[in-house]
Amino acid sequence: VLGNSFGRIFRVTTAGESYAGAFRKNDEIPQLLRGGLTTIVDGIPDGVQIEAPEIQKELDKRRPGQSEIDTPRSERDKVYILSGVMENGMSTGAPITLYISNGELHDEHVEKHASYKGVVRPGQATYSYFEKYGRNMDWFGAGRASGRETASRVAAGALAKICLDKMGVDVVAYIRSIGSVQSEEVSYEDAKKNYKKNIVNCPDLDAGSQMIELIKEIRDKDDSVGGTVEVIIKGIPSGIGEPVFDKLDAVISHAIMSIGAVKGIEFGLGFDYKTKMGSEVNDVPKFNEHSGKTDFLTNNSGGILGGISNGDEIRFRVVIKPTPTIARKQETIDVMKKENIHLSISTRNDPCICPRIYPVCEAMTRIAILDSMYCSFGYKAVKKMINDK
Amino acid sequence: VLGNSFGRIFRVTTAGESYAGAFRKNDEIPQLLRGGLTTIVDGIPDGVQIEAPEIQKELDKRRPGQSEIDTPRSERDKVYILSGVMENGMSTGAPITLYISNGELHDEHVEKHASYKGVVRPGQATYSYFEKYGRNMDWFGAGRASGRETASRVAAGALAKICLDKMGVDVVAYIRSIGSVQSEEVSYEDAKKNYKKNIVNCPDLDAGSQMIELIKEIRDKDDSVGGTVEVIIKGIPSGIGEPVFDKLDAVISHAIMSIGAVKGIEFGLGFDYKTKMGSEVNDVPKFNEHSGKTDFLTNNSGGILGGISNGDEIRFRVVIKPTPTIARKQETIDVMKKENIHLSISTRNDPCICPRIYPVCEAMTRIAILDSMYCSFGYKAVKKMINDK
Amino acid sequence: VLGNSFGRIFRVTTAGESYAGAFRKNDEIPQLLRGGLTTIVDGIPDGVQIEAPEIQKELDKRRPGQSEIDTPRSERDKVYILSGVMENGMSTGAPITLYISNGELHDEHVEKHASYKGVVRPGQATYSYFEKYGRNMDWFGAGRASGRETASRVAAGALAKICLDKMGVDVVAYIRSIGSVQSEEVSYEDAKKNYKKNIVNCPDLDAGSQMIELIKEIRDKDDSVGGTVEVIIKGIPSGIGEPVFDKLDAVISHAIMSIGAVKGIEFGLGFDYKTKMGSEVNDVPKFNEHSGKTDFLTNNSGGILGGISNGDEIRFRVVIKPTPTIARKQETIDVMKKENIHLSISTRNDPCICPRIYPVCEAMTRIAILDSMYCSFGYKAVKKMINDK
Amino acid sequence: VLGNSFGRIFRVTTAGESYAGAFRKNDEIPQLLRGGLTTIVDGIPDGVQIEAPEIQKELDKRRPGQSEIDTPRSERDKVYILSGVMENGMSTGAPITLYISNGELHDEHVEKHASYKGVVRPGQATYSYFEKYGRNMDWFGAGRASGRETASRVAAGALAKICLDKMGVDVVAYIRSIGSVQSEEVSYEDAKKNYKKNIVNCPDLDAGSQMIELIKEIRDKDDSVGGTVEVIIKGIPSGIGEPVFDKLDAVISHAIMSIGAVKGIEFGLGFDYKTKMGSEVNDVPKFNEHSGKTDFLTNNSGGILGGISNGDEIRFRVVIKPTPTIARKQETIDVMKKENIHLSISTRNDPCICPRIYPVCEAMTRIAILDSMYCSFGYKAVKKMINDK
Repeated sequence: VLGNSFGRIFRVTTAGESYAGAFRKNDEIPQLLRGGLTTIVDGIPDGVQIEAPEIQKELDKRRPGQSEIDTPRSERDKVYILSGVMENGMSTGAPITLYISNGELHDEHVEKHASYKGVVRPGQATYSYFEKYGRNMDWFGAGRASGRETASRVAAGALAKICLDKMGVDVVAYIRSIGSVQSEEVSYEDAKKNYKKNIVNCPDLDAGSQMIELIKEIRDKDDSVGGTVEVIIKGIPSGIGEPVFDKLDAVISHAIMSIGAVKGIEFGLGFDYKTKMGSEVNDVPKFNEHSGKTDFLTNNSGGILGGISNGDEIRFRVVIKPTPTIARKQETIDVMKKENIHLSISTRNDPCICPRIYPVCEAMTRIAILDSMYCSFGYKAVKKMINDK
Repeated sequence: VLGNSFGRIFRVTTAGESYAGAFRKNDEIPQLLRGGLTTIVDGIPDGVQIEAPEIQKELDKRRPGQSEIDTPRSERDKVYILSGVMENGMSTGAPITLYISNGELHDEHVEKHASYKGVVRPGQATYSYFEKYGRNMDWFGAGRASGRETASRVAAGALAKICLDKMGVDVVAYIRSIGSVQSEEVSYEDAKKNYKKNIVNCPDLDAGSQMIELIKEIRDKDDSVGGTVEVIIKGIPSGIGEPVFDKLDAVISHAIMSIGAVKGIEFGLGFDYKTKMGSEVNDVPKFNEHSGKTDFLTNNSGGILGGISNGDEIRFRVVIKPTPTIARKQETIDVMKKENIHLSISTRNDPCICPRIYPVCEAMTRIAILDSMYCSFGYKAVKKMINDK
Repeated sequence: VLGNSFGRIFRVTTAGESYAGAFRKNDEIPQLLRGGLTTIVDGIPDGVQIEAPEIQKELDKRRPGQSEIDTPRSERDKVYILSGVMENGMSTGAPITLYISNGELHDEHVEKHASYKGVVRPGQATYSYFEKYGRNMDWFGAGRASGRETASRVAAGALAKICLDKMGVDVVAYIRSIGSVQSEEVSYEDAKKNYKKNIVNCPDLDAGSQMIELIKEIRDKDDSVGGTVEVIIKGIPSGIGEPVFDKLDAVISHAIMSIGAVKGIEFGLGFDYKTKMGSEVNDVPKFNEHSGKTDFLTNNSGGILGGISNGDEIRFRVVIKPTPTIARKQETIDVMKKENIHLSISTRNDPCICPRIYPVCEAMTRIAILDSMYCSFGYKAVKKMINDK
Repeated sequence: VLGNSFGRIFRVTTAGESYAGAFRKNDEIPQLLRGGLTTIVDGIPDGVQIEAPEIQKELDKRRPGQSEIDTPRSERDKVYILSGVMENGMSTGAPITLYISNGELHDEHVEKHASYKGVVRPGQATYSYFEKYGRNMDWFGAGRASGRETASRVAAGALAKICLDKMGVDVVAYIRSIGSVQSEEVSYEDAKKNYKKNIVNCPDLDAGSQMIELIKEIRDKDDSVGGTVEVIIKGIPSGIGEPVFDKLDAVISHAIMSIGAVKGIEFGLGFDYKTKMGSEVNDVPKFNEHSGKTDFLTNNSGGILGGISNGDEIRFRVVIKPTPTIARKQETIDVMKKENIHLSISTRNDPCICPRIYPVCEAMTRIAILDSMYCSFGYKAVKKMINDK
């Protein structure tokens, strides 16, 4: 119940923070083993080909320092597979451990962070963590509230992706808006076609260019800005999700709302439902005599009815708040000294976190979906779907 | 993993549907025991005074047939306490069972429902349930997808309320909008003062009058309409919620999104964050030298930072879709016969479900909050807070 | 984590005590709804025929007052099905609620129990319950530590039995010894053939007669006696159980050791392994070229290797302590008054609990086995095995 | 539900096998990161001093190659702390990752193991693993069924020990018998005084000498032998354990029976209860007017009544089967080739596993006890007990 695991059958357990142990200048400990992010993924069936580069590819999506609008920090994101995979890359059915070392940390970096001990960053988790853990909390780089923690989620999500790919279930996220720049709603096909065509991953390329301009402007003002991410799930079978408390949308919401900067989620029409009438928005099913299948004339519900997938495309949007850590001078407090202070943060951060959060949304969606498939269909049935390709 | 329980330490397990067994005309079985909703609530500590009328009071909030805008069905909502409480009303620490019988069902009622076997109601769970369970699914009154299932949640929430009241934690929900009628954001104090002053429970009384007019209009058109509910949590201590996957907002979102008609949730500024800049919306803490406490100058985050409560008021909003079951003629399919049909539903339903869903939002919020307090503080600490009043 | 549920996928939740609420002389509450045992069973798939008499049959096995060696109390064991089953007796896939009312309780009975408030019964749970719950604990008939609680287990086990029967998995328990009277180890076939041929359910009929004589002797001395129960699982497929922490024997041990009077469990050779050599006891597999199957020359391991079933018969034994509640005068304490007292208990109890505990061992074994099959094979695979008969 | 985690609040998740990835001769991967055992321990509160040498000390107890009666393999047991601990050794409340690399593996070693692909070792998990996982199972060194997996348990148990020590709860295990050599029952004080005085850790030193002689004899015959381990828990408070399914003895049994070679467990008098009468064995409480406390005149129940600790010493015994892997020529099968073969295993193994299993029994007991304390008392209460020393 301490919240470091997610999933009921496909189960991800994570540990690690940005600076744990890494700054211990202990020469007896090899640098790579002075601390890092560990992820144990339970539920990959035996007989699945797992290669580190496939995981690395997903991790690289969220890696900072990739473009001119990112934080210029160089991060340390190389992944090692420590268990569950045989020499030929084949999974054994045992839990798979993924490790990302914190790697080399320069003394000045650590000292800079150490100087923030007691300092509350407005809008960020420091205050509530201090209320929870007191003086022994991890002061360095926000501990478990660090954005770096999401690398564990992306690594685990990459394993889920390998399984979902084989079952023909695809998850794609894209930036829907940044600040006042809004993109059109994009079809699954277009989201795929223009995937990562620009550094904000907005498939509406004109909107994308404007978003990049906006982010640069805001960066130059030492400020940050919010936005929205849209997620599409294609190819999910009907019947996934459980009645009552573990409805598919409830489980996905849990997964997505657990990502640091996310402040809201909506499925299908979402908040637009509030002014609609039933006769306008009910999704009408139509039996197709040629295919022998049922099609829906509309998909306002976003592919989920009564908490269970209806076989249609699932679509939801999330809102991301502006990065709280900004270089501007702000009022705040020192919780150790119990005094009001001013703060200007010199470590650089992303002016807009959306381009680094969409891969995390993809990862958490994949984890939630694969776990829900295990729950609704069961281990052997899902394993068969994966192994049979 | 089959989704009929919620909560990690404070744990609610529910069972029952609208018509289960109730229509068995078996004279050997007393009417009250022919079927109903059963709720087992685990985690009420010993020494708490539990009386059926307090639970009944909460149940009556969501009972239909209370006002001119409700469905005129007479429901059967009397609650019985079957375990966990001594003759003097004192809890023993054992799980508490709450039972609501389906009671008397007239033959014509059952027959009417039986005639819908195979018929998909557009926008409702029938289709996805059939895909999941096949012909053996419960065709009567939507089975576990019935609105009646929420009576179990309200009953369990009433027990959580008794505990939270003693700890000074209050949860209040009100209707924020119906269709295009929008109320002002209301302070906690005003939400309390005008609580249930009108049949839509909108403390902005002018807006409330307009909402009632709107619902009547829509009812007369055999249609239904959506809306939004806002929930306020007052008095929650700081430090509640777990880092990473079980953030307080993630757990509340899971609880709330598991309510049938809810299609989105947002905390604090919510989707308005998307166009904001960090410098505008960061909640700045201020140390108050007189009180020795920290106050925040704003509460844009809705009382949760990094997934952990900061001691401020928690506020979130949810969107409710229009009731899918409407009297208007609609196109649809019969899944058993595999053919396209037309449907006009003669059982009456609520033209707007919001006035019956806000008590369910309150209940799920209370369950999620009490469970999170147990997780963060632990059994004995919470028990002490409850027993010491 | 409060311990009132068992199972990971096939999940049983119980509530209720011997006297909860039942003694409230509240005429507004029908007698049958003044308190009782409630069991919610989650995980029976849709399409399984469930009839109350099949559950009643199992419950009757453990009902007291059946024979001259039982406690002469008349118990109240009629089971009602409150949810999850349609009018034709077919399950819907929703959780099934089983209710056993505490029924009529005579005032003198309640008063007698009330007089034991504060009195510790030596060897029984009163003392540790008081340490845990304090004065608000349920003093009547031992609350959740009452033998009556096991009726919930047997009811749930009866549902598991219906499923296991369809898959050809059979669980049989018999009395192996009472006091110094020891029966031979009995084959599965003989255990079936002589099942319930005598009131102690010992298929070695000579030993059974001696056991009955012994129990009568001990009853006449106002004393009680211990014994052992042996459980055989026939027809379980290979591959059930999980590596590491949820080995099949670990899960069965958890299930069985949770029964009140059980103080030990051993699988296969069990404690006899302690003096054996590897070369003597290793179960040697032999490939049978005719059948194309593997047979083991011996089954010392009791059908489980490395925590996973090998397809052979599973066999384990448990030891049952003598009923602590005896009529003899005993020294003890009153925990409320904090003083040493003498106690002679006038409510009659079983001189040997074994004949009433073997059905509970069967029930918990079935629950553990069915749950383990769900975990290892998954929901759909097990549902298919059940529905296909 | 895949069984790689244990504990409800204090939660241990493990991954890793003896040879995973380690034999990939991939020069891009540093040797220490080619595979190993990873353990994530969730539930160590903030403010606890954690040092690698304390964990190493426990690991060294089970390390092979320590004495003349052990397997002469040199194992690789150095532990690294990868998260949850600050530079000063102080825990932060975040999950703690412990990593033990598989280290250097010589080519000949790997090749020898590779040659066993398909070969069933009689009495060992190969057969049931093949039935469960098929050809993709981990053939090397028994995968997750390897004795090496228990190093993860001991590492996690060492963290539990640090917490329990501060609360004055002590767990001690010793060898009670090997083959026909039986030691006396030993008091807690004597078990401590003579702890590890001989290489079999039998505090009855005469019996210990005979055990060592016996093991040598059996080793010289290329055979193996079973035995029993006794575990004592001292200083556990009363009130620990939950009624019904999560009784303290049920949880401990789950923990202990999940250790590979354990085939039975008994508490207090255990199987000796079977011939006893209630009047002989009921533990009589006595109120001590001087101390104001209750003492029991006897402790036949082994410190647990009704599944809840009564504050007395807890004592249980487990039986360990002889190591199945022996050098003697045995009949067996090749599951890949489906043929009967003969097997003489040339990798050396322990002739008696008891001296290496008692530390694992200690570890699992500590994990189960600490978790049960968290469940019964709650996080903050246990944290306070730990931090206040």
